[in-house]
Amino acid sequence: MLGVHAFAAANAYRFAAEHTGHYNCWMKSGNWKTISSERRFFDHNLEVVTDRVQTPSHPNPRDWTIVHRKPAVVIAPITQDGKIVLVRQERIPIEQAIWEMPSGQIDDRNSDPDNVKDVALRELREETGYELSPDGELISLGYFFSSPGFTDERGHFFLARPVQPCADGPAREDGESILDCCGFGSNEIRRMIAENEIRDANTLGICATLAARGLLSLAPRL
Amino acid sequence: MLGVHAFAAANAYRFAAEHTGHYNCWMKSGNWKTISSERRFFDHNLEVVTDRVQTPSHPNPRDWTIVHRKPAVVIAPITQDGKIVLVRQERIPIEQAIWEMPSGQIDDRNSDPDNVKDVALRELREETGYELSPDGELISLGYFFSSPGFTDERGHFFLARPVQPCADGPAREDGESILDCCGFGSNEIRRMIAENEIRDANTLGICATLAARGLLSLAPRL
Repeated sequence: MLGVHAFAAANAYRFAAEHTGHYNCWMKSGNWKTISSERRFFDHNLEVVTDRVQTPSHPNPRDWTIVHRKPAVVIAPITQDGKIVLVRQERIPIEQAIWEMPSGQIDDRNSDPDNVKDVALRELREETGYELSPDGELISLGYFFSSPGFTDERGHFFLARPVQPCADGPAREDGESILDCCGFGSNEIRRMIAENEIRDANTLGICATLAARGLLSLAPRL
Repeated sequence: MLGVHAFAAANAYRFAAEHTGHYNCWMKSGNWKTISSERRFFDHNLEVVTDRVQTPSHPNPRDWTIVHRKPAVVIAPITQDGKIVLVRQERIPIEQAIWEMPSGQIDDRNSDPDNVKDVALRELREETGYELSPDGELISLGYFFSSPGFTDERGHFFLARPVQPCADGPAREDGESILDCCGFGSNEIRRMIAENEIRDANTLGICATLAARGLLSLAPRL
């Protein structure tokens, strides 16, 4: 039973750390426990498991199927003149090509923060052909969960500003399906979101975060 | 070969319809083709397949693993006095409880728009205990893809305003893991996004969309 209590204690710490003081958070005393885990499928990109779990609100064990995915980086690259650089990418599961912020997976789940930043800068360069200017900065803006009902996938948000074209252009890998790359003004980004032309979680999520931090205006101009 | 051409034609139409006239869109002549599909796992909540596919930019066939998921609804409920109603929900894949907009899956993939609206109103009532006021309106705000690199899951956004408490409170199903429900002012929503306390794609995505349409201000107050 020691293991269970240690796990509960670790989670109590996590909830306490996340608790901002605004809410009644009875979760702090709760237990999360994975009783068993059965792998159903895996390949290089995902692992599907069915776990038997107890949660603070459901102490009676139940089964839940989870898709494990590597974490990702999502980068908002802003040029000296205020353009946001998007890529147009083919996405096979939806059979569409859509405009998105550059992004990529972090191969090592246990990456330290500096390594994650290196991944962000590499993906920026590979997908867009842009890099940080000599006076540029890469600012961490937190992370998000793409669909926490079924996957642990998370994306780490970064603002890269200002960015400039690399001398040698984009260095896309064979697997990439990027069709185009273009800088858009903030009013154009706003229009594309309002008209549902931008419609992926990475881009919408980082735009909401940039707006809430005062780094991008999404308000329509009157 | 007729089938392939018909499929390509259908996609050409889709791209043409999505094309806004701003970009060079050579995709219009492209082919998306699924040559074969092998089911790897399925249960009530997801189906994992490995498809052999051709895309406009990669005519040489390659394998891609896709997680099929039911579409979902995501509802932003706003009260008469401008509060946004969020729920705090346990999410097993991330072993956390987080504040989110109410949401739920659409069981029938082929639902017509009216049916999708019914699902949105039902999920609103079940998860929050709120319903549209007699003079209220449910406004469709488009949809988004949660992680289009590996899943076709999409969420349909709705604004419900104004909402009011139901006479009989929330009607949560047994499977629900909602711990709390609370109304937040727009400045509090902004703070929660800026401080990474709101960190799920549904909530960030609908907030970006509301902001871009002038229905929610995410700008910090000076």
